[in-house]
Amino acid sequence: MPDPIRAALALPLAAALLVAAAPAPAAETEADRPRTMQEIIDAAQPSDWRTPDPASTLYMELDSGRVIIELAPAFAPEHVGNIRTFAREGYWDGMAIKRSQDNFVVQWGDPRGEDEAGKPLGSAKARLPAEFSRASDGLAFHRLPDPDGWAAQVGFADGFPAGRDPAEGRAWMAHCYGAVGAGRNLEPDSSDGSELYVVIGQSPRQLDRNITVVGRVIDGMERLSVLPRGTGPLGFYEHPVQYVPIRSIKLASELPEAERSPLQVLRTDTPLFDELVEARRNRRDDFYKRPAGHIDLCNVPIPTREPEPAQ
Amino acid sequence: MPDPIRAALALPLAAALLVAAAPAPAAETEADRPRTMQEIIDAAQPSDWRTPDPASTLYMELDSGRVIIELAPAFAPEHVGNIRTFAREGYWDGMAIKRSQDNFVVQWGDPRGEDEAGKPLGSAKARLPAEFSRASDGLAFHRLPDPDGWAAQVGFADGFPAGRDPAEGRAWMAHCYGAVGAGRNLEPDSSDGSELYVVIGQSPRQLDRNITVVGRVIDGMERLSVLPRGTGPLGFYEHPVQYVPIRSIKLASELPEAERSPLQVLRTDTPLFDELVEARRNRRDDFYKRPAGHIDLCNVPIPTREPEPAQ
Repeated sequence: MPDPIRAALALPLAAALLVAAAPAPAAETEADRPRTMQEIIDAAQPSDWRTPDPASTLYMELDSGRVIIELAPAFAPEHVGNIRTFAREGYWDGMAIKRSQDNFVVQWGDPRGEDEAGKPLGSAKARLPAEFSRASDGLAFHRLPDPDGWAAQVGFADGFPAGRDPAEGRAWMAHCYGAVGAGRNLEPDSSDGSELYVVIGQSPRQLDRNITVVGRVIDGMERLSVLPRGTGPLGFYEHPVQYVPIRSIKLASELPEAERSPLQVLRTDTPLFDELVEARRNRRDDFYKRPAGHIDLCNVPIPTREPEPAQ
Repeated sequence: MPDPIRAALALPLAAALLVAAAPAPAAETEADRPRTMQEIIDAAQPSDWRTPDPASTLYMELDSGRVIIELAPAFAPEHVGNIRTFAREGYWDGMAIKRSQDNFVVQWGDPRGEDEAGKPLGSAKARLPAEFSRASDGLAFHRLPDPDGWAAQVGFADGFPAGRDPAEGRAWMAHCYGAVGAGRNLEPDSSDGSELYVVIGQSPRQLDRNITVVGRVIDGMERLSVLPRGTGPLGFYEHPVQYVPIRSIKLASELPEAERSPLQVLRTDTPLFDELVEARRNRRDDFYKRPAGHIDLCNVPIPTREPEPAQ
C-alpha cells in the first residue's frame, strides 16, 4: 500500500540528490539535534491535521486518475460559488485541458473561441466581481518571518499560501506551484470561474492581485504537470485531438462517502507547522553543508496524508 | 517554420491568461508607453545576442528530440572538464533518465546502485573538488536591484542567474528552473559530474552553495519537464522499463556544423536586457492592473532565438 504520509507537491527530502537510488541510512538520533521534516510529520497529532471541507473540494477525474483541488471560499466566495454550481451541473464533464505552457500553467475550460457561442453556463452567474484580494480584517494570518519581494508580508491563511499588506489592509492568495486561478479577459471582472488554470512552474507571483485565485491542488499535481506542452501560442494545443479529456469535475460533497478520497492536509497554523518550516529553512541533515537561513513562501511544503482506515 | 524568436523556458506573455486562445489585438503604440518584452526582443541588435561556445554546449538527444545545455566553466571548471570528457567518450550514450520528481528535478546517470560496480569513467577524473561557489573577484556580475531572501545580491554572470556575497567574496549559480547540477553523496567532494539533474519546478534555492551547479538548459526543457514522475522514493523510477533512454550526449563542438543547433541567447549584461527585466518587473500591458514592482531572479526570462539563415 502507499505510504500514508505523502508530502504534497513533491518535496525535496533530506538526501534528495544522492547519486544512488538507495535511501541513506538514518542518522543516529541525538537529543540536541532538531527534528527532520519527516520526524516532525511522524510526530504530528490528529489535531495537527485537517480534513478539507467536502463542499470546497473538487475532484477532477482524468484518464490518468484524480486531481484534488481545495477551494478557498474565504478569498474568492463569488468564484467558489460559481465553481460549485459548475461542478454540480456537470459543466466541465467531457470538456478538456486545452493548454499546457512549460514553466507556467495548464488550463481548461470551453475550447470554443470568443467568436463562437460558448457552452451555456447553466445556473452559474455570467458575471462575477474581481476577487483579486480581500480585506485582511477577520482573516487569521499565520505569518512567516522571512522577507519577500512581492508582498509586504507572507504567510498562510486557511491553509493557503498568501500575501498581506497591512498598509492597505488587504490579503490575497499567492501564485505558488499548484495554485488554481480563474482565467479572465482584459477587464478585471471578466472571469466567471468556468476557465481555470493551475501553476506548474516557477511561481508567477507577478499575477498576485491581478487575477482571482480560487484554490490550490492538494493532490495529483503530477497528473497535470507532465501533460505535453502545447505548441500553439501561449502553450495552447493546436489541434483538438491533443486535448486532454476531463471525465468529470465534481464536488466531494456530491459523492457518496465511499468514493471520496480520505485526504488530510497538515494545518499551517500550529507550532508543529512552525517547526516544520524551520526544519526547511535551515536543513540540519547530513546532506546540507550550509543551511539557507531563509525560505520563500512558495518553497514551504504543505504535507498531506491518507489516514489509516479504522480497524 | 518556427518563430525565430523563442522565449526560453516558456514565458508568460502579456495576455497569457486570456480566456480564449485567440491572440489579443496589439495595442496601439504610444510614444510614451514603455516597450513590451516582445517589442524589446524584436528591437535587439545582433550585438545583443550571443552564441554559446560549442565547447561548452551539450546536446542531449532523447527520442523526443534535443535538449541543449550550456555549461559554465567560469563557475565549475573541474566539473565542466569532466563533463566534456564524458561527452567526448560517449559515457552517457545508451544510458537513461532514471528519476523525475514532481516540482523538483529529473536526473540521469549510471542506474546501478552504490553496491554495484558502476560504468567505468574512462579518462574522466574519479574525484573532483566541490565547486559550490567561486571567488567573486574577476567575475563580471550584472546585478539586479531587487531584494532576495537567499543571497545578499542576485544578478547574472556569464549569462547565468547567480548569487553573490560581497562580505565573503563569493559568487555561485542559482537553482532556477532549468539549472543543471551535479548529484553527490553526503561528502561535499563526492560528485564527479557523471550524475546530473535538472530543476523542473519551483526554484530549490536552498541547494545553492550546497552542490555544484554546472550549467543551464537553454532549449528543450519541455522534453524533460513532462517526463512521467517516478513512483519510487525521491521520484526514482521503480522499474528499468520506465527509464527514459538517452540516445547520446555530445558536445556541439564535436559535431559537424550542419548538425549543430543555431541557437543564440540574449545577453544579460546589456541596457537592452535591463529594459527587458524592467518590462517584466512592471508589466505595463492592458492585462496587468497592478505591476509588481519586483522580480525574483528565477522569474527573469532569458530569451533565445534561432537566427534566420543567411540568404
